[in-house]
Order: sequence, then structure tokens, then C-alpha cells
Amino acid sequence: MPKVCMIGSGNVGFHLALAWYEKGVQVVQVFARELKKAVQLAEKIDAQAITQFQQLVPDADLYVLAVPDHVIEQVASKMKAVLPTSAFVVHTSGATPGTLLQPYFSNFGVFYPLQTFSIPRQPDFQQIPICIDASTLAQVQLLFTLAVSLSPKVFQLLDTQRAKLHVAAVFANNFTNYCYHVAEMLLKEDHISFELLQPLIQETVNKMKQLSPAEVQTGPAIRGDVNTLQRHLDLLSTHPDWQLLYQHLSDRIQADLGTQ
Amino acid sequence: MPKVCMIGSGNVGFHLALAWYEKGVQVVQVFARELKKAVQLAEKIDAQAITQFQQLVPDADLYVLAVPDHVIEQVASKMKAVLPTSAFVVHTSGATPGTLLQPYFSNFGVFYPLQTFSIPRQPDFQQIPICIDASTLAQVQLLFTLAVSLSPKVFQLLDTQRAKLHVAAVFANNFTNYCYHVAEMLLKEDHISFELLQPLIQETVNKMKQLSPAEVQTGPAIRGDVNTLQRHLDLLSTHPDWQLLYQHLSDRIQADLGTQ
Repeated sequence: MPKVCMIGSGNVGFHLALAWYEKGVQVVQVFARELKKAVQLAEKIDAQAITQFQQLVPDADLYVLAVPDHVIEQVASKMKAVLPTSAFVVHTSGATPGTLLQPYFSNFGVFYPLQTFSIPRQPDFQQIPICIDASTLAQVQLLFTLAVSLSPKVFQLLDTQRAKLHVAAVFANNFTNYCYHVAEMLLKEDHISFELLQPLIQETVNKMKQLSPAEVQTGPAIRGDVNTLQRHLDLLSTHPDWQLLYQHLSDRIQADLGTQ
Repeated sequence: MPKVCMIGSGNVGFHLALAWYEKGVQVVQVFARELKKAVQLAEKIDAQAITQFQQLVPDADLYVLAVPDHVIEQVASKMKAVLPTSAFVVHTSGATPGTLLQPYFSNFGVFYPLQTFSIPRQPDFQQIPICIDASTLAQVQLLFTLAVSLSPKVFQLLDTQRAKLHVAAVFANNFTNYCYHVAEMLLKEDHISFELLQPLIQETVNKMKQLSPAEVQTGPAIRGDVNTLQRHLDLLSTHPDWQLLYQHLSDRIQADLGTQ
């Protein structure tokens, strides 16, 4: 099994390193700016906790940058100063092209597990699609080996495809979560538990496992039910921002799906 | 067990009548404008299929209007002509006040199962919250009996609360479904299967069973990650409508949740 260095011990780095360890992949070092954070992960996976790039071993098969998108380049530049240029370096970002690493390392790629991670929640990697890409076939194969050890759902995607997938994920995850937030706030005002909506939310998701969202769109907008739309807008009059958003989303539903 | 007439054999009427029948509630008649539709349901539940309001039995304990919101009043007015004014009539609408029925019947109420129904999908009523209300205590009790025969989750809500719940449900169901639609369309352009997003979508929903949506909001907007936001807006430049929606939702996330 290949030898990996994990740079970053946040949500993604933490769970990825732990999952690899459980599958027998050697994660030899964990880098974090704070020693405490590096140790917290390293001690779980028999790795060395480090806080200086100079401490990185030069002969790992793979260096994984699981760091916030906006510091990827800065970290890569610091690593370039201490590693051989032939080192194989990947990042775990959905939104960032792999080629961002090209000025720093000749062997670069992407290892992007498509999930929303948070440290307290144990992810089930078997259910997580992993999107990979790398500059040479041998490196794609190495990433593939490391990915299939975690999940049966491994996809080689181009930078352009991964970027599109990432925008789509913002719609499917961040924006839906915000809609749930508005729903919860509205219910709170009338002392209604958000739990009442849970079965509806789950059924909305279940339907889509068999049918396309366009086929299962319901509600006053797609029905062209102007009375209900107006009643809802009136109800939202004390929340002009949410009223505007209600109108915007209803307009889009009618424009994109209303004529079906 | 009480004797019920079901007016309407669409998504809600169909599943409600079927579920009652299975629990031993006598649904004696099914009204639909098309005989074929009335028969389709009636024959499953040993009921009489009718297409004329004059055929309604005058002595049912409850008449359930499971019809589109905009025809509730018109149907109530036609029923008033043939039923005693003391007949107990409810509708199944989330958005419509119960008092809409008041000019027609002295005994009125609401029986609103909070779920998105479609005829081919068998709903699990045990998981469906049922919101009830009626003009007298005796009638609330009758509705409660009929509701608990189907689901342990029965709530007596005021018209104003149910209306709020209905708007919240539009955010939690219709608007999230539209977001899934946009995601699917974006992926299609790059020949990526929508299945890749399913685990992310399911996890978004799972998180909310333990935490509030505000606590689990992720993504470039809440992180204030202007580079990724700009990259996403650029990617959406060929879809100006979705670009505008992306901006609107990102602005809302930052305004409502960004300072936490």
C-alpha cells in the first residue's frame, strides 16, 4: 500500500486519513499549523504530527492537500521549497482546477470526495463518490487504488466536469439547506416544531431516487395556483427578503417547469 | 368506526381513502367528476363510486373534500344544495383556512396530511404528520380518532399555524426540489450522472435530524469564499437565470447566516 502525507486535519483531512488508516493505507505524517490539531488526528492513525513543512518526509507516494481552497496555492508554494519537484501532490477541492498545482509540482492531481463533512459525524465512505484526476496515467492508477479502497464509486472527471459538479452540489446541498433554514424560522414564529417537516423532506429526497426532479415538482408555482401564491406572499410580508426569494423561486419554477 | 364520504380521488383522496379502508374506517362513497376515476378507487375499498352530488348519502359522519384548493368553495356550495346544513365537512388543504367552508356548513374543519402524494407511490402514513382542526370539540375528537388510526403524529393547528406550515413546506419541498432540478440540468450538460449527488443530498437531510439547518450550513457563501463564488458565477454565465438565482441565494445565506 502507498505511503501518504496528509496536509491539513480539518473536516476532509480528518475523515479521509482515518478512513485510509482503517483500510491499511499508511498515512505517515499529519501536518497542521496547530500541533494540537495535528496530534488529535495523528494519534488515532499511528502517524507523526508535524507543524513545519521542513519536517515532511521527501519520499511519500502522495501528498494530500486537504486545506481551504484559498490557501492551496500558498501551501503548495511552501511545500515546493522542501520537497523534490517530482513529488506527487493532490488537493481535495471540488472547485479548484488541478492545474493550480502545476507551477509547483510536475506530478499533480485531484482527490475529491463529494460529501459534506463535519468532524463529529462519521461518514460512510462506501456511499461517497470520489472524483479523481492526475497528470499521468500511472498517477491516476495510484489515486484509483487509494479511492477504491474507500468507496466503490470512483470517477475520473476533468477539471471542467468537477467544477460543474461543484456548482451543482451548491444547489443540491447549500441552497436546499438554506431553504430548510427559512422553513425552520417560519415555523418557530408560530411555535411549530421543525420535526413536522422531516417526513416531507425525506419523501422529497426519496422520490428523486426513482424519478427526475422535473417529474416530481409539485406546489402552487407549478400548478399556476395564483391564489395560494398570493396568500403565501401576503404571509411573508413581514419578511420582505424571504418574500422576494419566494417570488424569485416561484418564477423560476414556472419558467423552467411550468409548461410541462 | 365513523362513516366517511370521500369527495375527490386525486393524490390525497386516493391514498387517504385507501389508508382508512385498511384501518377499518368505512369510506362509503367516492365522488369524482369522471366515473372511471371514482371507480378506480371505489373498487379497491368496497365503496360506491358516484359522479353526482345528489347521489351523496345524507348521513355520513364526515365528508372529506380532497379537491384542488381553487375548487373547494365551488364544491362546498354544490354540496350545500344536497346535504343537511349540519353535515360535517372538512377539506384537506394546507393553504386554505377552514373558515372557507363556514358559509356552507355549520360544522366544518380541516384534515391536512402533511406529505407530497403521488398515486403510484405508497405513502407510509405512520410517518406522516396529520394536522386537524374543527369548529367544535366533538368534531375535533372525531377527526382525532380518524387521524390516529393512520398516524401517531396528530396535531391540532390553528388556520394561521397551518398556513405558516404550508409556506414553510413550499420552501422545504418545492424549492429544494427545484434546486435539485437545476443541479441535474447542470450535470447533464457535462454528461455527469445525477446519482453522484444522491449521497450528498441524503447526508444534508440526515444532518438536520440532529442539528438545525443554521448549524450545518456549508459552502462558499457562508465561508465568504469570494474566489469560489466568482468561479461559480462565471461557470453559470451561459445560464443567466440560474446565475441570478445563485447570486440571490448566496446573498441570503451571507445575510442570514454569515455572521454566525
